[in-house]
Amino acid sequence: MEDSVNRLRFKRLGIHTQHEHFAYMREDCEVCISEGFEALTRIRITSGRKSIVASLNVIRTDILTPEEISLSESAILALGIKEGKYVTISHLNPINSLSYVRSKIYGNNLSAIKLKEIIEDIVSGNYSNVHLSAFITACAGNRMTSDEITFLTQAMISSGQRLSWKNKLVVDKHCIGGLPGNRTTPIIVSIVTAFGLTMPKTSSRAITSPAGTADTMEVMTIVNLTMAQIIKVVEKEGGCIAWGSTAKLSPADDILIRVEKSLDLDSEGQLIASVLSKKAAAGSNHVVIDMPIGDTAKIRSIEAANKLKVEMEKVAHAIGIKLKIVITDGTQPVGRGIGPALEARDILSVLRNEENAPTDLKERAILLAGELLELSGKVELGDGNEKARKILESGEAYKKFKAICNAQGRFTEPKLALYKHEIKADLAGTVIKVDNRRLAKIAKLAGAPSDKEAGIDFMAPIGIEVEKGQTLYIIYAESRGELEYAMEYYNSQTDILTIE
Amino acid sequence: MEDSVNRLRFKRLGIHTQHEHFAYMREDCEVCISEGFEALTRIRITSGRKSIVASLNVIRTDILTPEEISLSESAILALGIKEGKYVTISHLNPINSLSYVRSKIYGNNLSAIKLKEIIEDIVSGNYSNVHLSAFITACAGNRMTSDEITFLTQAMISSGQRLSWKNKLVVDKHCIGGLPGNRTTPIIVSIVTAFGLTMPKTSSRAITSPAGTADTMEVMTIVNLTMAQIIKVVEKEGGCIAWGSTAKLSPADDILIRVEKSLDLDSEGQLIASVLSKKAAAGSNHVVIDMPIGDTAKIRSIEAANKLKVEMEKVAHAIGIKLKIVITDGTQPVGRGIGPALEARDILSVLRNEENAPTDLKERAILLAGELLELSGKVELGDGNEKARKILESGEAYKKFKAICNAQGRFTEPKLALYKHEIKADLAGTVIKVDNRRLAKIAKLAGAPSDKEAGIDFMAPIGIEVEKGQTLYIIYAESRGELEYAMEYYNSQTDILTIE
Repeated sequence: MEDSVNRLRFKRLGIHTQHEHFAYMREDCEVCISEGFEALTRIRITSGRKSIVASLNVIRTDILTPEEISLSESAILALGIKEGKYVTISHLNPINSLSYVRSKIYGNNLSAIKLKEIIEDIVSGNYSNVHLSAFITACAGNRMTSDEITFLTQAMISSGQRLSWKNKLVVDKHCIGGLPGNRTTPIIVSIVTAFGLTMPKTSSRAITSPAGTADTMEVMTIVNLTMAQIIKVVEKEGGCIAWGSTAKLSPADDILIRVEKSLDLDSEGQLIASVLSKKAAAGSNHVVIDMPIGDTAKIRSIEAANKLKVEMEKVAHAIGIKLKIVITDGTQPVGRGIGPALEARDILSVLRNEENAPTDLKERAILLAGELLELSGKVELGDGNEKARKILESGEAYKKFKAICNAQGRFTEPKLALYKHEIKADLAGTVIKVDNRRLAKIAKLAGAPSDKEAGIDFMAPIGIEVEKGQTLYIIYAESRGELEYAMEYYNSQTDILTIE
Repeated sequence: MEDSVNRLRFKRLGIHTQHEHFAYMREDCEVCISEGFEALTRIRITSGRKSIVASLNVIRTDILTPEEISLSESAILALGIKEGKYVTISHLNPINSLSYVRSKIYGNNLSAIKLKEIIEDIVSGNYSNVHLSAFITACAGNRMTSDEITFLTQAMISSGQRLSWKNKLVVDKHCIGGLPGNRTTPIIVSIVTAFGLTMPKTSSRAITSPAGTADTMEVMTIVNLTMAQIIKVVEKEGGCIAWGSTAKLSPADDILIRVEKSLDLDSEGQLIASVLSKKAAAGSNHVVIDMPIGDTAKIRSIEAANKLKVEMEKVAHAIGIKLKIVITDGTQPVGRGIGPALEARDILSVLRNEENAPTDLKERAILLAGELLELSGKVELGDGNEKARKILESGEAYKKFKAICNAQGRFTEPKLALYKHEIKADLAGTVIKVDNRRLAKIAKLAGAPSDKEAGIDFMAPIGIEVEKGQTLYIIYAESRGELEYAMEYYNSQTDILTIE
């Protein structure tokens, strides 16, 4: 009987709400009235054999008729529904695993089975953002035991796909709390795969920054690979540097991480589970963690780093990953370029051993690649750095990088945008402060990351002495309009760089 | 400069999202691109001198143009903006008080000043549902000290209006976790105001139930009173029974309570702050709390009730409220009617001392009114119940009830709906179980609470012996269609009543 009463016709409005599914129904539609549905009620929506949970927003204008329902983009995808089809709307039975979340809020520990059920419900979209936030909060503040973190990591691994590779020894690296311009990844992959290790690397695109590793790589090659293509590239070249979105590895992590960001909450347990579940699901078993420490970095003190290190090693051990945590300098951006093409140029200049290649980027890549070589057991402890340097400086790494790019579909030389404006020093002195946030904003106003060639070439790191009139940085844009747009913002600001 | 770049024209789409403000912008609009805004980014929207914080949903169809922005209904109200006007969109500076929430998550206690800032931000709409959920979760699980609960209560009181009354002694009652049909309020107000006490009572409408006290009162009088009208009625008659929505008392509570419901989380601290802040803001200083205990009630054991009692009395003392907690039976619905007019009929039959008046409703009202009389200090301890009974049975309470109704605008006799269907017992036996949730659904499908005369007249409480063919309940509806609609559901169900 529910079927005949609670049916509405689907109309797409194209509202993108991220992970949480939303349904839109007229306030005066029969279903809302008879069921007592109101804004934010959680309801079940069924189409054929597929069924999802959604939060309700009620509509008071004629963008919908009382016979229609709309769904957020994620809900449309999950239901696989076409415009004009009918869906059934019903009351939601209580989500069982939410009682475990409440139990955790009241201070009880969660078992492996309960954490698995929670993670499965999260991946199925059964939790609203309110529920996700409660789960994250209940687990934060060091309220998870080592066992719970291990269970959570295992639950997250089994929530999605899990890759396996012909070569049993699979390496990876991860940087906790990225630094601007820290594009060591393509260089490290090139070095360790040139050495002969397997490193199937997937990276992300920019969310709020002017470039992610995937955006930068896209300047030089194709990153939008299917899982089958990634496997083919890795089988041929030993490694890849692809966009990670198509692989459904630890999907729970993608959902939780958005809510954590929104709370600006770095829960130790969630962080460990996030990083290690992604690596384990990708089939990696030897992982180097780059842990930059600095005032604006995610980890701010050696003490905090060491605490995290101990806990992370415990969990890694439990899930069969050999882990090496490398503490690095997180006080400054790395490299010179800000924006996809400019960062790609930095990477290539390091790989090509050009004279003006950014030393910080090169040394950081060698350090981490060396650690990976040693961790793999194929290079003696203490010899990794030298070995990595040799592979890079001999040109082998560059050769491998081009081979990987070609295997991914093409190798293209980065170009810089036609329109540019040089920002010069007003006075002589030493650069003592750089506002990375506002520099990033200028790069974005100039068009990065969607305009690949746009961005900033930055030549004035902290500590450098400059003369009056010396170029501090150059703003690049693909059109005159965008350059003016970025300049307009630049002109409205003061003290992006402080010189004393 | 931000002004010239980040301006969009407002178009109303009529999307109602409850308290959290949402903004809708085209994914390909210049502001989203240049600012790096994506779904769920928190942004500041300014119109004239008013400014709000909203969560962003991005739009991928032409329900908006790239030059337009839409806002959720709550955001439109908060900005006071008209269609076609321009708004300015800007990045949001971090909300300072969220760092206090994080501090609480990490186990630190919150000071009065910090809790005040949190509550002010919540009332201003600066917290998303994700933030609200984190705050509630961090305070749940008995993680608040008595001091913190007191500070929270005080912060909530000062977040909105605060009423004061000529008569210094002001009484009120509150029921924690309402029971179906528990309409003691109008009877209690009539008794204690007939005695001479001041009781400015405001009640809520139904959210998901077939009737709230305000819906029931609306059958007999006008409940939609302005603050000025409430004051006038109370000055004349000593009391009122109005809808509480127009008075902006403890507005933070209204916001927090929705998120708590969504989490199904009864945090002791939040519950105490919620109840006591509303009462204090309404100017009450002598309050009786009806605390029903039962398996399906909010409080499930005497032990839990006593724990809550101790903490609640501590906070009440700190904010200057004299409190009496009365533990009552919460195992069964009270009265016979389900739906506004049917419940109004029960109230009147008690006030008029009719022979078939529901005894449970009458005795409960007398009990609580007696406690209020004693708490006021105007009646000796031990004499309250007798005094309350006398006022009710003498007809004084009924006289006062009609006077209050007339002061509020009218007194109207409730009528029952024309269309009805009697549900009869299939077999003889004892009623051992009643599914209140499904009974409520039938009442709602029949039209309650928007159709005031619709609902259920229920004659078969647990424990009663019935004969085969005896009427168990009668379904009332204002139209034949709605009656059929309710019956269709009824026919699809089994065991709404269990007879053995």
